[in-house]
Amino acid sequence: MKYREMEKDALAAELSGLNAKYVSLREAGFKLDLSRGKPGADQLELSMPMFDALGSSDAMLAENGFDCRNYGLLEGIPEARRLMADILEADPEEVLVGGNSSLNLMHDCVSIGFIHGYPGGNGGWHKADKVKFICPAPGYDRHFSIAEHFGFELVAVPMLSGGPDMDAVEQLVRDPAVKGVWCVPKYSNPSGVTFSDETVRRMAGLSPAAGDFRIFWDNAYAVHDLYPEKPDVLLNLPDELKKTGKQDMALIFTSTAKITFPGGGISAMCASPANISWLKKHYSYQTICFDKINMLRHAKFLPDLAAVKEHMKKHAAILAPKFAAVLNTLESELGGLGVASWNSPNGGYFISLDVMDGCAKRVVALCKDAGVTLTGAGATFPYGIDRHDANIRLAPTFATPDEVEKAAELLCLCVRIAAAEKELAGR
Amino acid sequence: MKYREMEKDALAAELSGLNAKYVSLREAGFKLDLSRGKPGADQLELSMPMFDALGSSDAMLAENGFDCRNYGLLEGIPEARRLMADILEADPEEVLVGGNSSLNLMHDCVSIGFIHGYPGGNGGWHKADKVKFICPAPGYDRHFSIAEHFGFELVAVPMLSGGPDMDAVEQLVRDPAVKGVWCVPKYSNPSGVTFSDETVRRMAGLSPAAGDFRIFWDNAYAVHDLYPEKPDVLLNLPDELKKTGKQDMALIFTSTAKITFPGGGISAMCASPANISWLKKHYSYQTICFDKINMLRHAKFLPDLAAVKEHMKKHAAILAPKFAAVLNTLESELGGLGVASWNSPNGGYFISLDVMDGCAKRVVALCKDAGVTLTGAGATFPYGIDRHDANIRLAPTFATPDEVEKAAELLCLCVRIAAAEKELAGR
Repeated sequence: MKYREMEKDALAAELSGLNAKYVSLREAGFKLDLSRGKPGADQLELSMPMFDALGSSDAMLAENGFDCRNYGLLEGIPEARRLMADILEADPEEVLVGGNSSLNLMHDCVSIGFIHGYPGGNGGWHKADKVKFICPAPGYDRHFSIAEHFGFELVAVPMLSGGPDMDAVEQLVRDPAVKGVWCVPKYSNPSGVTFSDETVRRMAGLSPAAGDFRIFWDNAYAVHDLYPEKPDVLLNLPDELKKTGKQDMALIFTSTAKITFPGGGISAMCASPANISWLKKHYSYQTICFDKINMLRHAKFLPDLAAVKEHMKKHAAILAPKFAAVLNTLESELGGLGVASWNSPNGGYFISLDVMDGCAKRVVALCKDAGVTLTGAGATFPYGIDRHDANIRLAPTFATPDEVEKAAELLCLCVRIAAAEKELAGR
Repeated sequence: MKYREMEKDALAAELSGLNAKYVSLREAGFKLDLSRGKPGADQLELSMPMFDALGSSDAMLAENGFDCRNYGLLEGIPEARRLMADILEADPEEVLVGGNSSLNLMHDCVSIGFIHGYPGGNGGWHKADKVKFICPAPGYDRHFSIAEHFGFELVAVPMLSGGPDMDAVEQLVRDPAVKGVWCVPKYSNPSGVTFSDETVRRMAGLSPAAGDFRIFWDNAYAVHDLYPEKPDVLLNLPDELKKTGKQDMALIFTSTAKITFPGGGISAMCASPANISWLKKHYSYQTICFDKINMLRHAKFLPDLAAVKEHMKKHAAILAPKFAAVLNTLESELGGLGVASWNSPNGGYFISLDVMDGCAKRVVALCKDAGVTLTGAGATFPYGIDRHDANIRLAPTFATPDEVEKAAELLCLCVRIAAAEKELAGR
């Protein structure tokens, strides 16, 4: 029965029982963590053979004969460009392979905008009175933080079931101060949403007032399907941009952070020839080249997209039970109570839980006191402000399945407590 | 006999003979290169055992137990911080280990200044009407290019035998627009100069008008002695800064690019606690961490400074004969003619050759026509302008000893031709 339909006395009794259970669980001294979007140790083991891909007796030559041990090839070695292009369904010629962090590439691209601007604009954004970035929310806190750190104004738009509210985005880009929009188009962080075909087409058709407006398309979870037999399918943005003739409007990113090693993988960006040329020019002042040895190691370990897909099935086999543990617990403990809703993502690293308005902070605090760490309430919104105080990001990947289940049970208990408290307070 | 003391007819005969030799050598169709400050393939072989330092059966744990395969530790793993601190004679707590490129760290540090400024200043330098950087010249073109790319004004000061002209530097920093000075303090690129104790002390005692003025101290060749038994000794800047109480005034950089692999090594920066805290704060928006796996690989291969020094002796054994080939040829072909001067560095990657004023471009062009590529004349000066048109940077490391000798012979011939031409034109 839904809490809001329960009699006051019954609900008070329910809360009393929940609190008693909470006290006893808190005494158990859990130390559990659902806050970290990190692969677990078992996932890291999957890529250990890569450490044998290059040994002291191997030639360290790229397929074009280039010695990966010396300076050169700012754009990356051909086989790594092809690998990352395959993951992004892009043309290798439009791909630049970077270092160990796609976040760093995104930061660099914002920085290049701030300092120098982009083709089609009027120079560095630092000269503008105001710069705004569109932030579909809930979204990835590190994206929002980059833009905020540059002093830009963050403009939230709602994430809907098919991606960002495109009516709002189309309206906002009429403002010449709007220079960018952050997107995680597949298995979005944290909502798990994959942008619908219509959303991608409307993105590709945007008519921004700013000629140097860019879509920052972080395709971090391009091959990160939880159920490889029924993956979400994302419409290819570069193809759609070619149709609208607006190829220069997007900068596309990905990495192997959650394919091989977080912080030890390779990253890539894909863009139109005009953008790639612009980025290469600016990067040529910043560095001589990225780490080609690690590119070669990756390309040997994952020679083609088929190898990547086989590898990702092993990740899925580890991750799917953890996601199922959370989702089953949410369903069994919260289903039918009318106190929370959540998504069942087909991939990515997160489950997005919406509790009753005004309850997220309370839930996170209750969990913390009982030894379960969650991502801070509000973290998925610009400036950390969720005006509904409802969204909680759950990251079930790092903990063991047993820990995940225990943490989910305690979480559900806290969600019910906070909901019952709120419902009673309103009577 | 010096060219300027030769009779006109004798000098004309000399030039005629030189030209005949040049024509015959040009026909030999050389393809030689003294332009690239890159290690040769034989040097790269020295670090090949590093590829066996980490295999699939190894635990990938740092000495503090941290899993190097996952996110975290923005400042780097302890053993890599210690290694880089030992190379820099610094405190590991004041060292941050970066990615594959110290140039990128330097660029980031300039970028942080441009966007946010530094403690002691008035915010981002982009808000200032004018920003100036002091460029001791001849110097490293990539340093100068970074500052120029940010729109800063480059102010050249002469490199003297003990380092930059400190009278000029002390005078210039009275200008609040001066925010930085570039330094390669040991085996400077290209002059091979190691800053004298007095220079280091005067650097540490600078009293800049700008509170956020920083010394960009690129100690790229800290352990790169050509003759390990008689290395240049650089006074330790952090120690001197502690004496003057101006610890925040310097940002110090190095990398293993020319210890292990260019573009495949690890980099580091060293700074005061206030600067490190400032840099870490800004880096935390840019990336989650640098590549700890490559740090671990380096720390296993080079566990301490003694291992580094042994390793660098092997580099020296390869490089010293190449430097000797150039220097011996310069001495035998140009000695006593009064047409050129050069240094005999005890380390680093370059020999700096000064030909007669107005002759550098001519020499580089003559060499090019005969198949010997040199660094462009002027490249070692701000804006690429050597107003004496005299300096040529020679990089003898990448070619084989035989190639180096052939190239040096042809170079000397071209220096003599240009000098004789000039001398005759003035009669």
